[in-house]
Amino acid sequence: MIDDNVLTKLVLIVGNDHVISNEEAKLSYEIDWRGNFSGRSLIVVKPQTTHQIQQIIKVCQELSIAIIPQGGNTSLCGGGVPVNDYDKPQIILNLSLLNKILEVDTANNSITMEAGCTLANVITAADQQERYFPLSIASENNCQIGGNIATNAGGIHVIKYGMMRDLVLGLEAILPNGEIVNQLTTLRKNNTNFDLKQLFIGSEGTLGIITKAILKLYPKPEKYITGLIGIADIEQAVAILSQLQSKFSVCAFEIIHSSAQNIYNTYFPDSQFPISAKWLILFEFETASTEAEEFELETLFNIFSRLNINLNEAIIADTSNKRDNLWHIRENIPLAEKMHGYAVKHDISLPISQLESFIQSNSANILKYHPHAQIIMFGHLGDGNLHYNVQLDNQLNTKTNEAKINEIVYNDVIKHGGSISAEHGIGQLKLELYRMTSDPQSYLLAKQIKQLIDPNNILNPGKIF
Amino acid sequence: MIDDNVLTKLVLIVGNDHVISNEEAKLSYEIDWRGNFSGRSLIVVKPQTTHQIQQIIKVCQELSIAIIPQGGNTSLCGGGVPVNDYDKPQIILNLSLLNKILEVDTANNSITMEAGCTLANVITAADQQERYFPLSIASENNCQIGGNIATNAGGIHVIKYGMMRDLVLGLEAILPNGEIVNQLTTLRKNNTNFDLKQLFIGSEGTLGIITKAILKLYPKPEKYITGLIGIADIEQAVAILSQLQSKFSVCAFEIIHSSAQNIYNTYFPDSQFPISAKWLILFEFETASTEAEEFELETLFNIFSRLNINLNEAIIADTSNKRDNLWHIRENIPLAEKMHGYAVKHDISLPISQLESFIQSNSANILKYHPHAQIIMFGHLGDGNLHYNVQLDNQLNTKTNEAKINEIVYNDVIKHGGSISAEHGIGQLKLELYRMTSDPQSYLLAKQIKQLIDPNNILNPGKIF
Repeated sequence: MIDDNVLTKLVLIVGNDHVISNEEAKLSYEIDWRGNFSGRSLIVVKPQTTHQIQQIIKVCQELSIAIIPQGGNTSLCGGGVPVNDYDKPQIILNLSLLNKILEVDTANNSITMEAGCTLANVITAADQQERYFPLSIASENNCQIGGNIATNAGGIHVIKYGMMRDLVLGLEAILPNGEIVNQLTTLRKNNTNFDLKQLFIGSEGTLGIITKAILKLYPKPEKYITGLIGIADIEQAVAILSQLQSKFSVCAFEIIHSSAQNIYNTYFPDSQFPISAKWLILFEFETASTEAEEFELETLFNIFSRLNINLNEAIIADTSNKRDNLWHIRENIPLAEKMHGYAVKHDISLPISQLESFIQSNSANILKYHPHAQIIMFGHLGDGNLHYNVQLDNQLNTKTNEAKINEIVYNDVIKHGGSISAEHGIGQLKLELYRMTSDPQSYLLAKQIKQLIDPNNILNPGKIF
Repeated sequence: MIDDNVLTKLVLIVGNDHVISNEEAKLSYEIDWRGNFSGRSLIVVKPQTTHQIQQIIKVCQELSIAIIPQGGNTSLCGGGVPVNDYDKPQIILNLSLLNKILEVDTANNSITMEAGCTLANVITAADQQERYFPLSIASENNCQIGGNIATNAGGIHVIKYGMMRDLVLGLEAILPNGEIVNQLTTLRKNNTNFDLKQLFIGSEGTLGIITKAILKLYPKPEKYITGLIGIADIEQAVAILSQLQSKFSVCAFEIIHSSAQNIYNTYFPDSQFPISAKWLILFEFETASTEAEEFELETLFNIFSRLNINLNEAIIADTSNKRDNLWHIRENIPLAEKMHGYAVKHDISLPISQLESFIQSNSANILKYHPHAQIIMFGHLGDGNLHYNVQLDNQLNTKTNEAKINEIVYNDVIKHGGSISAEHGIGQLKLELYRMTSDPQSYLLAKQIKQLIDPNNILNPGKIF
């Protein structure tokens, strides 16, 4: 229960309508998207201005209350909910009412907004001005720009447009001492000292609360060429990617292992993969016009013939309908997987040259331990990002087995120069793993910076560290 | 003169052949590229390994000696030479012997090298493996990768490939306490905590000494389409840029004002601009093949006709010879300017939508103060980066006049949301200007981070702060 004194102070700041103190009503804010993490909060506050957030921080510093900044609450690592049984009281600072698009500048190709805008709203606002914002992740209707920045979101267009970090021109953040760091700029070239905005990008709300941002926009792609082809191994995929990139503006290059194809076909009998192979590649590139499309298709077929790809086993989507169908299949793989049962999931990345070797040695290691384990693989090859999920028979789904599988997977990831978290971040989920696998001096320096900026550890405690 | 004790310790670390203690021989390391800044050093040391640098730092910490990290010594802001009359003794730590290319990974499109490699060597090493490293700045034969990273170098390809920051996958840096921060990774997706490498990029050697780096490579462009067209105003240039970007992979978009054209034509009478106009645009985009080139030229002419650009006043370079000529002219503008006499130079950037308004109001303000001032303008329009140089009659070239011109220019830059240093950094040159124009909380935070990492201020003191 919240102390009347705290409640009064917070209500005075944001108004009665913008606090949620009822235990029942708070629940949906206190549990994460996957249902794996939850913690109690004193209260949920929904400020409407930067100034209100500054005042809230001051109250929390005074009373030693921790603040959990929360956007769309779509973190896959428990990054946006309170920590269970934390030693300080926690409040949730939900940013969804800071949701104004402030400017779309078509000359400068930039968009300025408050941090609580959903990704979908930003995409739409850009689209209305004939511009394109390329971040593409499944949660776009719920996730918010502040969270996308705080977690350095990835998705399927990273191969061409980069991660969220690459899309941020400027931002405003409020420090744990209540002061505003103003890095709001639309400039593409600005070499005045350390690029401080980089500190806040990917810091998962532990260094500051992002309140505004300015993002890059791009010309709106007119058309796409999308294709699905079957191949025998990753090496061939790398060769195809290299050829495509030398000719086209490749914006997606997904690989889907037969394990994932089979599961999809089982649970979506009415749609099915139109072809099958050990690996399928789903690629897409942007094309500037119908004339360009014709010309580029010709170039594409030349590449295929040079690489001995059987065109009878390739699907090229020449209508937007066919394109939607291919992406629909890709996007429903996680759902098919869920229907198939619980899996130990890994969001990892590897140097592209190490992918094949990692998969071979790690599959062998997993099967040695659990001969009936199923390894379901798909990912974004262009970025070396693999979703690598291990499914066991129901009766083997124990904490111990899960820990053992994680150990086998992450050991091989580290051995092959990979990352234990490609795009989902650390949150509460990978705290220990991060500590154990990080370069020691980097870990120490990160902790020192956290200590410098948030000496009382009131901002999103229990995340990352 | 160097104390025998210090000399002995440093010689023991790097060997007698890799120290320069002779006063005469040190001079060229102690004065900057433009000849504007110089300071005395105890000694110049040229370590060959990361470990030697760690040992040098320990000696310097022990004896309270400042370290000036130096790459190719091509800073345009005095960033790589000792500060004059500093209260601590200073040594120059020259990285030119850490110059090995360690790996070119064509599957992963990355290159790993020691920090003392010249930019030209990196470009060549990539080229030998049919890959492309896109950073393009005039000093490529002298400048080193460590310096390019420490200053976040820019150049003419930023519009497509970004600044040096966007090209760095990983790096290794040695902290002022002698410890190594290992952020060497080839991964394109890695969301494990703060992206600490960002701190060192653009920090001008004040936070750590960069010793190794891993950079992104790209497919080698096969051909270019390059053109020069005359236009009436910046607004028209922005419209053309927008059209070109929607159809092509634009990798350069330079604007050259008639002031710069006239000076070039005066001092290079044998070459001359082939056309003239209030503004000229020099643009370039990459094209994948001869067939693509034909098709794209047609698209280009359609754009020109839609935008009412007179093709008789446009030059399209259809041979690599003609292309070289156009770039030769562009690259010699600074030389022509130098021949014309001293100018007060400004490396500024502005939001593209503010460029025209800045130029109009600032030219008027300059002319009000100095009716005969000549303003020479050229720049990278795609990034809003303008080289804006003010030339006065010889007898007016006084410190007072220079200060007044700077004041007029930078006031208007700030008023229009621009940056006082687009690509050259702060160094010793813009220290005060940076302090005065920076967001106060950002300045404070930057200083706190410097203090945290380098509490004794032994790393490149007198730069930035």
